[in-house]
Amino acid sequence: MDSSQFREAGKGAIDEIADYYDTLAERPVLPSVAPGYLRPLIPASAPEEGESWDKIQSDIDRVIMPGLTHWQSPKFMAFYPCNSSFPAMLGDMYSGAFNSAAFNWICSPAVTELETVVMDWVAKLLALPDVFLSDGEGGGIIQGTASEVIVTALVAARERVVRRRLRDMPEGEEKLDKAADIRGKLVALGSEHAHSSTQKAAIIAGTRFRSVSAPKDTNFSVTAAALRKTIEECRAKGLEPFYFTATLGSTGTCAVDDLAGIAELTKDYPDLWIHVDAAYAGSTLVCPEYQHLCPPLAAFDSFNFNLHKWLLVNFDCSAFFVKKRKDLMDTYSITPSYLRNPHSESGMVTDYRDWQIPLGRRFRSLKVWFVLRSYGVSGLRAFIRKHVKLGEYFNELLESRSDIFSVVTKSAFGLVTFCVKPTPPHSAVANANQPNPGHEAYLNDFTPTAEAQYQEDANQKTKDVYEKINSKGEFFLTSSVVCGQYIIRVVSATTLAEEKYMKQVFDALVEAVEEGQGQ
Amino acid sequence: MDSSQFREAGKGAIDEIADYYDTLAERPVLPSVAPGYLRPLIPASAPEEGESWDKIQSDIDRVIMPGLTHWQSPKFMAFYPCNSSFPAMLGDMYSGAFNSAAFNWICSPAVTELETVVMDWVAKLLALPDVFLSDGEGGGIIQGTASEVIVTALVAARERVVRRRLRDMPEGEEKLDKAADIRGKLVALGSEHAHSSTQKAAIIAGTRFRSVSAPKDTNFSVTAAALRKTIEECRAKGLEPFYFTATLGSTGTCAVDDLAGIAELTKDYPDLWIHVDAAYAGSTLVCPEYQHLCPPLAAFDSFNFNLHKWLLVNFDCSAFFVKKRKDLMDTYSITPSYLRNPHSESGMVTDYRDWQIPLGRRFRSLKVWFVLRSYGVSGLRAFIRKHVKLGEYFNELLESRSDIFSVVTKSAFGLVTFCVKPTPPHSAVANANQPNPGHEAYLNDFTPTAEAQYQEDANQKTKDVYEKINSKGEFFLTSSVVCGQYIIRVVSATTLAEEKYMKQVFDALVEAVEEGQGQ
Repeated sequence: MDSSQFREAGKGAIDEIADYYDTLAERPVLPSVAPGYLRPLIPASAPEEGESWDKIQSDIDRVIMPGLTHWQSPKFMAFYPCNSSFPAMLGDMYSGAFNSAAFNWICSPAVTELETVVMDWVAKLLALPDVFLSDGEGGGIIQGTASEVIVTALVAARERVVRRRLRDMPEGEEKLDKAADIRGKLVALGSEHAHSSTQKAAIIAGTRFRSVSAPKDTNFSVTAAALRKTIEECRAKGLEPFYFTATLGSTGTCAVDDLAGIAELTKDYPDLWIHVDAAYAGSTLVCPEYQHLCPPLAAFDSFNFNLHKWLLVNFDCSAFFVKKRKDLMDTYSITPSYLRNPHSESGMVTDYRDWQIPLGRRFRSLKVWFVLRSYGVSGLRAFIRKHVKLGEYFNELLESRSDIFSVVTKSAFGLVTFCVKPTPPHSAVANANQPNPGHEAYLNDFTPTAEAQYQEDANQKTKDVYEKINSKGEFFLTSSVVCGQYIIRVVSATTLAEEKYMKQVFDALVEAVEEGQGQ
Repeated sequence: MDSSQFREAGKGAIDEIADYYDTLAERPVLPSVAPGYLRPLIPASAPEEGESWDKIQSDIDRVIMPGLTHWQSPKFMAFYPCNSSFPAMLGDMYSGAFNSAAFNWICSPAVTELETVVMDWVAKLLALPDVFLSDGEGGGIIQGTASEVIVTALVAARERVVRRRLRDMPEGEEKLDKAADIRGKLVALGSEHAHSSTQKAAIIAGTRFRSVSAPKDTNFSVTAAALRKTIEECRAKGLEPFYFTATLGSTGTCAVDDLAGIAELTKDYPDLWIHVDAAYAGSTLVCPEYQHLCPPLAAFDSFNFNLHKWLLVNFDCSAFFVKKRKDLMDTYSITPSYLRNPHSESGMVTDYRDWQIPLGRRFRSLKVWFVLRSYGVSGLRAFIRKHVKLGEYFNELLESRSDIFSVVTKSAFGLVTFCVKPTPPHSAVANANQPNPGHEAYLNDFTPTAEAQYQEDANQKTKDVYEKINSKGEFFLTSSVVCGQYIIRVVSATTLAEEKYMKQVFDALVEAVEEGQGQ
């Protein structure tokens, strides 16, 4: 394909992509294909001779489209969103055109320098404490995903402890033995509701992992007291907690750990690296009404959130901020210390390869720059507030039918979680004097057995309703289990989200419950 | 930006990108900016109100273009190439449009299924042994970079050893202690000329690292005997080698380790995970004349090469093949074993998140599919052979001036390395009876001192010439040091590469040498 053929093919693709977005709301969000659908649709090996673009392009509709889950659909309310935007797509087009493996400054100065400046823009936009700006000892880097960031932070934390303990020891086999002994006793910590990537990162780093309790009575948040308790329990066993993922918006319920309390705790545990995972909810910090969450962050070692979730930058784009970039470079730079250059230390020249696991890097700051400029601060705030409001609206809808739904965690950052109330057994109903039987009807004898039965029935019924909705493919929701309770999660934060789709999914849920009761 | 504005902006961007490619050869390959050039060109924070696309787009020329290193230029002969192609760019455009974080099958079945089939296409295209196809116990996955792949393989290797040793031990604190003890004695190995990413991966995994000797007299390749020697030396110290990166095309000189010999060795060391890093040179395996390298690969645990280097797929796209996918899943899946499903085991449904470090995934197989179909097998072979031939041509040019250049490693996979002969001291010239003084003139007394002096002078002169070429910015070359010898590397394998550019860079090198001699 030469450049004139590309002009034609590229413009055709732009029209196809625009058409796709114009018709997204009409498509069922989930595909109806069965596992293995694709292999029979295409040959078993690459063609001997090249094929025309027309032939290739027509296969997108035939082969790919039937197997897509439409994450940009307004009916996608599962997981957390993964929003695209047109300016971000344009950024990626230019990034692809300037294609390079920009692993150091000279590999393409613009790639490094725009990233540094734009990460400062992002830090200011979120009102992050100044320690995370590049003009001091910290700074921001774009990595792929929050899970990659957590591995990066956790391994750096592991090596920081080792360095601190063995600071005065000469290099050699004996030091390597000692380092191995230290690593063997380290424990990474995370909320019991933290994303599983912390546990996976501990496996990768070869350390132990313990979860910190975050029960329903603290709204599934880790308190400073709970964290201290776990740390001390580990120490009593001769183990050394070295890392904690504090959660600003947990995966299950969007719970926020007690950041202010935990910030105080850091004084007692200076070797504990605290990373704040705000993968989804971090985007709300663009709005002043959420920025009260920011000051405690100054006490922590690192922070990250995914612009590819809720801030309109196409996947992948996770912004990772550290207080001391030296903490990363001391682990990830394999340039011996006598080759360190004053530019890198001063921040004039940054070699981001020394802040991360892979060597090569894409030009991802371009799409961030385009998005921040296209929307402006006011546009981004309006975007976030719209979805927060949709969450509140959905919360109200659920409460309007408290006879069948029970809100488990109220609308937080746009996410609502709830369960379906079970139909009480006839005996319980007979004994109940409430007009609206439910939990109370079960519990009118207040025995633990009745409580357990209620929970089991609620879980089963919630699961049935959840599966019924997703099996239809019109909407896509996610379920979870928190502290033994089966919940349905609804979060509508795509670009095309609207109140009418919240009402539609609510009606579908009501219908699913009532069908179940009619059986 | 709405979809109609995107239609206009996108088509404008397509034209700009095509124009960029049409004018690439006229631009100096290296930018002339100084560190810190970009920050003063743009505001210190994001704008309050959104800006128009016209304003944003015009900043590409003003802010970005002056700071780009043009990796697609035919005058880019540094590192290894990082080729783009128009079909790959189209693939990335659709991938961006269907934007999702496809971490499991239902997140977008097409993303998983196309990847499985297309990785089979790639394995067949390269004549990889059948063990790497998805219909057995193995299969391929697209990861970002070779360095990411090496971490993934090395950590999986570490955990495989631990599992094997502790197979019969019940879960609990005691087992965790034992596992830590085992990890503390593990050593990862790689050629002294292997890419630094193996050493970095060992740091990330928290294991030791030792390099295996690969001297000039084996053409910088690791032999089976050298590997065995290092393994036994480690064992004698109570350490346990568990992983080795075998190199198919080293970074410095494109050396190939003795794969057939090392394949034999695996019988004696069944716990040693051998990963073959063919990041650059692996692409040549599309040509039958290189496929004699493939049969020994069946003895190894994993193999990878970067389609984003030499096979026309935009960055990033590293193809990683494993013989037993279970070796990855046993480490990276944190789904407890009782939740494993028969689909995953059978290969009907693959959850690639369990084969890798990050959770989320992009739709990268689309660009691979487009490239393989657009070029066809014959087109890809022609593409590789063209660059191999350019390397041979450049080798001939150097040999035509053996009075000033000395080829260190002959053209291999398109790469030639060489040094500049020093001007001998007057005394040596006076004693020399050769018409073409050089190494021989230095060594006519054959003392180690004269040899060392020759090497030092050659290194200095080669470095001077190298720096002179790059400082002009017209061409971009890379230097390296192998076994104490300073070398210049030239590899011309971009899409626009042509003989005339090889001649131009050769003339520039001759001129730089002669300028130096005139001083």
